[in-house]
Amino acid sequence: MPPSHPFDFGAVDPLGDDKLHEECGVFGVIGVTDAANFIALGLHALQHRGQEAGGIVTHDPESGFQTVRRFGYVRDNFTDAETMAKLPGTLGIGHVRYSTAGSKGQTAIRDVQPFFGEFAMGGAAIAHNGNITNANSLRRELIERGSIFQSSSDSECIIHLMARSLQKTIPDRMEDALRRVEGAFSVVAMTRSKLIGVRDPLGVRPLVLGRVGDGWVLSSETCALDIIGAEFVREIEPGEMVVISAAGLESLRPFRPKKSRFCIFEHVYFSRPDSQIGGRSVYETREAIGAELAREAPVEADLVCPVPDSGTPAAIGYARVSGIPYGMGIVRNQYMGRTFIEPTEQIRNMGVRLKLNVNRALVKGKRVVLVDDSVVRGTTSRKIKEMILDAGAAEVHFRIASPPTAWPCFYGVDTPQREKLLAAGMSEEEMRAHLGVDSLRFISLDGLYRAVGEAGGRNAAAPQYCDACFSGEYPVEPADMVEQGFRSKTAAE
Amino acid sequence: MPPSHPFDFGAVDPLGDDKLHEECGVFGVIGVTDAANFIALGLHALQHRGQEAGGIVTHDPESGFQTVRRFGYVRDNFTDAETMAKLPGTLGIGHVRYSTAGSKGQTAIRDVQPFFGEFAMGGAAIAHNGNITNANSLRRELIERGSIFQSSSDSECIIHLMARSLQKTIPDRMEDALRRVEGAFSVVAMTRSKLIGVRDPLGVRPLVLGRVGDGWVLSSETCALDIIGAEFVREIEPGEMVVISAAGLESLRPFRPKKSRFCIFEHVYFSRPDSQIGGRSVYETREAIGAELAREAPVEADLVCPVPDSGTPAAIGYARVSGIPYGMGIVRNQYMGRTFIEPTEQIRNMGVRLKLNVNRALVKGKRVVLVDDSVVRGTTSRKIKEMILDAGAAEVHFRIASPPTAWPCFYGVDTPQREKLLAAGMSEEEMRAHLGVDSLRFISLDGLYRAVGEAGGRNAAAPQYCDACFSGEYPVEPADMVEQGFRSKTAAE
Amino acid sequence: MPPSHPFDFGAVDPLGDDKLHEECGVFGVIGVTDAANFIALGLHALQHRGQEAGGIVTHDPESGFQTVRRFGYVRDNFTDAETMAKLPGTLGIGHVRYSTAGSKGQTAIRDVQPFFGEFAMGGAAIAHNGNITNANSLRRELIERGSIFQSSSDSECIIHLMARSLQKTIPDRMEDALRRVEGAFSVVAMTRSKLIGVRDPLGVRPLVLGRVGDGWVLSSETCALDIIGAEFVREIEPGEMVVISAAGLESLRPFRPKKSRFCIFEHVYFSRPDSQIGGRSVYETREAIGAELAREAPVEADLVCPVPDSGTPAAIGYARVSGIPYGMGIVRNQYMGRTFIEPTEQIRNMGVRLKLNVNRALVKGKRVVLVDDSVVRGTTSRKIKEMILDAGAAEVHFRIASPPTAWPCFYGVDTPQREKLLAAGMSEEEMRAHLGVDSLRFISLDGLYRAVGEAGGRNAAAPQYCDACFSGEYPVEPADMVEQGFRSKTAAE
Amino acid sequence: MPPSHPFDFGAVDPLGDDKLHEECGVFGVIGVTDAANFIALGLHALQHRGQEAGGIVTHDPESGFQTVRRFGYVRDNFTDAETMAKLPGTLGIGHVRYSTAGSKGQTAIRDVQPFFGEFAMGGAAIAHNGNITNANSLRRELIERGSIFQSSSDSECIIHLMARSLQKTIPDRMEDALRRVEGAFSVVAMTRSKLIGVRDPLGVRPLVLGRVGDGWVLSSETCALDIIGAEFVREIEPGEMVVISAAGLESLRPFRPKKSRFCIFEHVYFSRPDSQIGGRSVYETREAIGAELAREAPVEADLVCPVPDSGTPAAIGYARVSGIPYGMGIVRNQYMGRTFIEPTEQIRNMGVRLKLNVNRALVKGKRVVLVDDSVVRGTTSRKIKEMILDAGAAEVHFRIASPPTAWPCFYGVDTPQREKLLAAGMSEEEMRAHLGVDSLRFISLDGLYRAVGEAGGRNAAAPQYCDACFSGEYPVEPADMVEQGFRSKTAAE
Repeated sequence: MPPSHPFDFGAVDPLGDDKLHEECGVFGVIGVTDAANFIALGLHALQHRGQEAGGIVTHDPESGFQTVRRFGYVRDNFTDAETMAKLPGTLGIGHVRYSTAGSKGQTAIRDVQPFFGEFAMGGAAIAHNGNITNANSLRRELIERGSIFQSSSDSECIIHLMARSLQKTIPDRMEDALRRVEGAFSVVAMTRSKLIGVRDPLGVRPLVLGRVGDGWVLSSETCALDIIGAEFVREIEPGEMVVISAAGLESLRPFRPKKSRFCIFEHVYFSRPDSQIGGRSVYETREAIGAELAREAPVEADLVCPVPDSGTPAAIGYARVSGIPYGMGIVRNQYMGRTFIEPTEQIRNMGVRLKLNVNRALVKGKRVVLVDDSVVRGTTSRKIKEMILDAGAAEVHFRIASPPTAWPCFYGVDTPQREKLLAAGMSEEEMRAHLGVDSLRFISLDGLYRAVGEAGGRNAAAPQYCDACFSGEYPVEPADMVEQGFRSKTAAE
Repeated sequence: MPPSHPFDFGAVDPLGDDKLHEECGVFGVIGVTDAANFIALGLHALQHRGQEAGGIVTHDPESGFQTVRRFGYVRDNFTDAETMAKLPGTLGIGHVRYSTAGSKGQTAIRDVQPFFGEFAMGGAAIAHNGNITNANSLRRELIERGSIFQSSSDSECIIHLMARSLQKTIPDRMEDALRRVEGAFSVVAMTRSKLIGVRDPLGVRPLVLGRVGDGWVLSSETCALDIIGAEFVREIEPGEMVVISAAGLESLRPFRPKKSRFCIFEHVYFSRPDSQIGGRSVYETREAIGAELAREAPVEADLVCPVPDSGTPAAIGYARVSGIPYGMGIVRNQYMGRTFIEPTEQIRNMGVRLKLNVNRALVKGKRVVLVDDSVVRGTTSRKIKEMILDAGAAEVHFRIASPPTAWPCFYGVDTPQREKLLAAGMSEEEMRAHLGVDSLRFISLDGLYRAVGEAGGRNAAAPQYCDACFSGEYPVEPADMVEQGFRSKTAAE
Repeated sequence: MPPSHPFDFGAVDPLGDDKLHEECGVFGVIGVTDAANFIALGLHALQHRGQEAGGIVTHDPESGFQTVRRFGYVRDNFTDAETMAKLPGTLGIGHVRYSTAGSKGQTAIRDVQPFFGEFAMGGAAIAHNGNITNANSLRRELIERGSIFQSSSDSECIIHLMARSLQKTIPDRMEDALRRVEGAFSVVAMTRSKLIGVRDPLGVRPLVLGRVGDGWVLSSETCALDIIGAEFVREIEPGEMVVISAAGLESLRPFRPKKSRFCIFEHVYFSRPDSQIGGRSVYETREAIGAELAREAPVEADLVCPVPDSGTPAAIGYARVSGIPYGMGIVRNQYMGRTFIEPTEQIRNMGVRLKLNVNRALVKGKRVVLVDDSVVRGTTSRKIKEMILDAGAAEVHFRIASPPTAWPCFYGVDTPQREKLLAAGMSEEEMRAHLGVDSLRFISLDGLYRAVGEAGGRNAAAPQYCDACFSGEYPVEPADMVEQGFRSKTAAE
Repeated sequence: MPPSHPFDFGAVDPLGDDKLHEECGVFGVIGVTDAANFIALGLHALQHRGQEAGGIVTHDPESGFQTVRRFGYVRDNFTDAETMAKLPGTLGIGHVRYSTAGSKGQTAIRDVQPFFGEFAMGGAAIAHNGNITNANSLRRELIERGSIFQSSSDSECIIHLMARSLQKTIPDRMEDALRRVEGAFSVVAMTRSKLIGVRDPLGVRPLVLGRVGDGWVLSSETCALDIIGAEFVREIEPGEMVVISAAGLESLRPFRPKKSRFCIFEHVYFSRPDSQIGGRSVYETREAIGAELAREAPVEADLVCPVPDSGTPAAIGYARVSGIPYGMGIVRNQYMGRTFIEPTEQIRNMGVRLKLNVNRALVKGKRVVLVDDSVVRGTTSRKIKEMILDAGAAEVHFRIASPPTAWPCFYGVDTPQREKLLAAGMSEEEMRAHLGVDSLRFISLDGLYRAVGEAGGRNAAAPQYCDACFSGEYPVEPADMVEQGFRSKTAAE
């Protein structure tokens, strides 16, 4: 009996981790010796974008396309010499994946990307960050015509659309396919000799280009360029498709141009603090958000304490502007993993205590400002507040480095259903009462725009970012969801 | 073929993690329902004291003594209901263990504590933090008389000495045994009905007492009381032995009294920041060390940056006193484990990059103060300096929150041989040149004493702490090491 | 690193097992509680037809189609309650599979049957014993039209042909598909409510029908009916398709009728001795082959000794007719598996000794008749001869219960390439000299036909069986092989 | 969670395998390159003597003593190059072990032999086949004096007795130890330079000596000499101790001489048919038992059918003498293992059907003589009878190749308690009625003695063999059992 993977039946996340989660990270490289090593390192750096599973495809003239896809961390699956020897070649792509809370049942290994398809003119592999919002109707149409789906993933549509395209080259077929697809998608793909990168016309999800030696790299974030010593070249532009081969890089524009709408939550939480977006480190942006928050929502207090680890940069910014001392009043257990396999009731009930402990001596008798990046369901926030009060804090003030999260994301982020979002049904004051804290303040949407560099704040007529999770304004109609009964704010009004 | 444990042949620590490591944590509880759950939680909180293996022994009138000992993390081994059901009872002890770098070959499961022995009057289990400095000669003597050792652990001597004692009760036998033993030892032990805790006369290693409901707890640190909601009562005193049963707690003094010499490195690095020692949080002590360091060794700079994660509190203290902005210029990959199984050459060579990445945008063009807790071999420090300079820093200044580590520890800490310690053969300036940084300063030994609360600094005639790793003054003769040719500073002079 | 499955890289079959191997067994059931249990038991009874991997698909109105496919034995993979709980329903099919020696590289789990496809009118699963001789050209054609293959299996063509059929029901689509397919195929398939069985027009591979309670069973052999207590009803006829649902069994004739050509090697070796074919037990047929062989090829000797285990019934028959005592001169180690994972050189070199040992005391000084079922490469025969002579036998006479195997099978049997077949390039006398035995005799093809019940022997004009492996006369053109350069005997002449 | 070993909680033997089982096999070799390979092969050949676990210890001047002990088959644990590389040296011993049904709870890995002890003059390892009948009192005495036991095995007493001996050499200490020990023991042991073999004074369990090249071999049976190509030299004599080193073989007689009493059940069932005992193959002895049985208990019938596999040689002998045709009316599934992990209820209930199937066509309408080696509880015999009748047999006659098993064995054989033995409470006729067969006959004890070569039958005054399981006459007082209340026949009378 093969051992169950760590997310099999019985696995429990006792943390009630109350975050939105990016669902994927993608990485590709061409023109380097042992591409798989580069991809493994890159995916390790992108692991925060997806921890459930990962996959690598490489191509080598002798062995053809080789694929390894596994559940678990990159460092456990893609570092040993035996596995890497199965992935020869100078060209390859990789993917890390987070499981979606809404998925019925379990992810099967067949749902793990990259996906591979054999076409009449040769094979192609594809990996995708984002979400195809019309996947259900595409799938129905393709099955009707005789395509056989092997996974429950929306991304598989792209491969079938490519298989049915009448175009002669794979890049041409990919253009055909992507023009049928709606939603947010940053794609890396490969043929026997080409590395391809595409960003959807709105550029919702990130994708950057780098060089390493004579080779080229595509990655969701710049932190994955750093780990392999690659030089950052530029971001792939919204609506751009790059095709890289021995002959060099070709930039194409297969889509009708649109104004870009990058995901603002990448700044708030998804991206790694050491990645750069728009020329500034995400860490600095988050510090700026904390600073803005201190200006918008000051409070008399003795200690600014981050909710580790994601609230840390904003807490540092808040402390600097407010002048209140910064201190690590909550300590994170670094040996904590994401889930437990069939734990005892008692251990299950420990919840957040397994991961966080209050620094009692530091907090005792103090008025504490807790800075967190976001509040989703509010479950963890309540527990943290209790821990802080148990430890003898005099007052607890929550300061949140994003506006209230009131709408689900349909562009590749794992969000609870709208009913589960605390902000969907409560005002700020109601939330404060619900959490039982002395004060609760979120940064304003305009404040957030200012902190990310839009000095004039949000352009309500034509927002510079995708902020649907805060505003309910969806830049792409979530067709499959609407079909299932979802009513967006616009539709509701 | 059973799967190899994660530290089996082929495992590589590519980080060259350049730290001293505590070798053990101990925990015991009596008078609670399902003691094993409490022990598992306590050991999880003490995991930083030993990551290689762990074990739990419980006793239940029906099942007798039950033992589970495994390689790997507590959270992976001691949380599932199936395992915990094998450990019934209201009384038990546990242990986490770090492998010693100097050990020839590998730790076997038989070396994993707690150890159990069946005596004529019943069984006893014992777990031990510290090191017995005359273990070799005791072992020879015991074998000569017909004892058969099952492990290579120094702690097994205690069980054999107990087996051969002519005393009638197990606590009495333990007294007999511990009086033969030299070195540093904080012991938790158990019989069918008693929980026992002992600290050696110098009190080198910590041991604290707590209450949970009607039960009692013994633990290496207070952070493990917090996780189970236990109340901190007091520290077990140096030279004290407590015997806890249904009849209550009895305090004994089996040893000739000595002046205590607690390990000062527990303040610097070993203990968790949220634990309390001597009534103050370790976090605050570390911040105070950073503050002292800023006063002793100021520098003109633009950014105070901790080497994550252990340098963080001292960096915050340094920044506060110096007025230089604090920023996280180095980001730690939270998906990094301790070792890789048979990695490829290329991945092995990535070393510290797998774990740390420089926040390039933050560091570029700045004069950076890097605050670290200690320098052992100096290997990681060099790599970090290179990363910071590669990212465009203008200057790099190292500030170290402990004096130069020039002598090995023989009291339960994994230290390289003296030749490998950078400070054993170099002056501060030589070390600076070796590391290639603009400046390098360690806190003074007196400064460290002040920061941990000795306002008058170190009492050279009768030091208040064990600081042998800095001073070379060993409070207990390391007999086995001397036998093997080690010459202490005193001996050398 | 997940443990490798037992047939992963590094596995070695040190036996040089010199047999032809059936590649598959199929089983299906409808109308019983917990169908998966029946299927597991049936597949366990059919394990001799394929040991590499197995799979089960069931359907339940609530859970829909569920699939489990695994490498290894049925008894290890499909008996535990946890797995079986994942396969609810009263209807299901299963498959066991042997890996083909000729396959380039390794079987992937995606090559393990049953295959499942989602069609516009619902899903269907299919499992197949045999081989599609025009799979390559079908595959090319399907890919050209946009089908994406997930496996390297010839059987997947059937699912894609079904997906593209314009028929309205799945049985109709299956008819469409199977009419495009050439070769030997006994298929069991299922929809949400129907169990389907089909045998190709020549009926090369077996398929039988049984009843268990109110339910129906389809199985490759009758021994799998016995294990579940099912009653044997009849053999599915060559060219027949049965569709079984709650409404009962419907028999269809989708193909143009042909004269049947059942595989004669099923009698010689493939089928289990306790299965019945044509109303007689396979064991009795094999005894009859041994008796015929004794008449055709008598010899003066002291002991008739079977090559275990497959030569046993023929040896008993040979002994009875010849009057020479029967004795087990060779003993088989019952703890021997099929392969070793990365064995040492010395163990690899033991070869057949790991599996067989000569009963030295029994054989010493005797003239021994060794009865085996077939000679393929002759490698094992040579080793056995050496073992027997080493043990002191006076003479060794080989008697083989089948004619010389001179041609490969392309209808679902794993055969070496023609060059590797000993009989392809040598006369009987040359083979005798090559093996180094005192005499070597094969049963004649006519003798074999007589023993299986054709009193008049083989009808050369219209052979009653498929005997291509002996005669080189292939009843279905092996199109894919011919394309690759294979020349059949007919073509050669 | 580490995977459970195959005999962990939840494993079920659905066969109700109704046999007595040898508990151990031992093997040792000196003077060969890579001794561990020879030991692994030898243990593989002895696997029938113990399937639960195995262990190997080797010694090499550079690495010292190395031990690997694992649950499961030799072929799975001791063939891969990685494991074997951990066992260097030209000298070593090994052990295979069967778990005892009576053992409370589970075998732990620490109970798996060989055992190793470090003495003042160096280490020694020991492996043991048999049982120490005064182990409990020895254990109590040793614990009283301060020995700490690590296992629940009786064999560990020997190591502790050796540790406490005042002798100067290990062979001398072993003599000291074995003189304190009562019961049946065939021991192989090793020091850094010597291989030692001992048989108890009665020689209850077998031990043979062989040569391979310039090296020497000790083994439980000759079949393990054959697999490594070793030459059989002679049996170690009862009461003999051989000490083999580079200087050659020395034969010692440490015990007071007694008349030998070899276990007669080794002939009936325990030993492999291809082993030789007393110059004759066990296979031939079993055929002779069948022949004797045909003479003692003839019957009119149509088919002699063995209960596979252990009844086969006796059935062949019975058929030859009776003239009734021999046929394999019952077929064994060769893919059947010993246990299932947590099977479903339905699979558990299949019992013997998972392993055996009746050859219906062969048995139908016939009067069948079923020949089995023994009847222990009678559970399997009943099920086989039912299967045969279900298949349409006209009559069923059981013929058993041993006398009624009415007494438990205390000399290293796993036997049910006396109450569970069918023959302990029933006459032959009562057993026949209980089994529901047309006739049931056991061979007489005298007949068995004749068949094993004692022409005059059993010498009642001084029996030539240990036949306590049949006669209740125990040649060594089972002291521990008597202490627990067991009354032997002699005591009862």
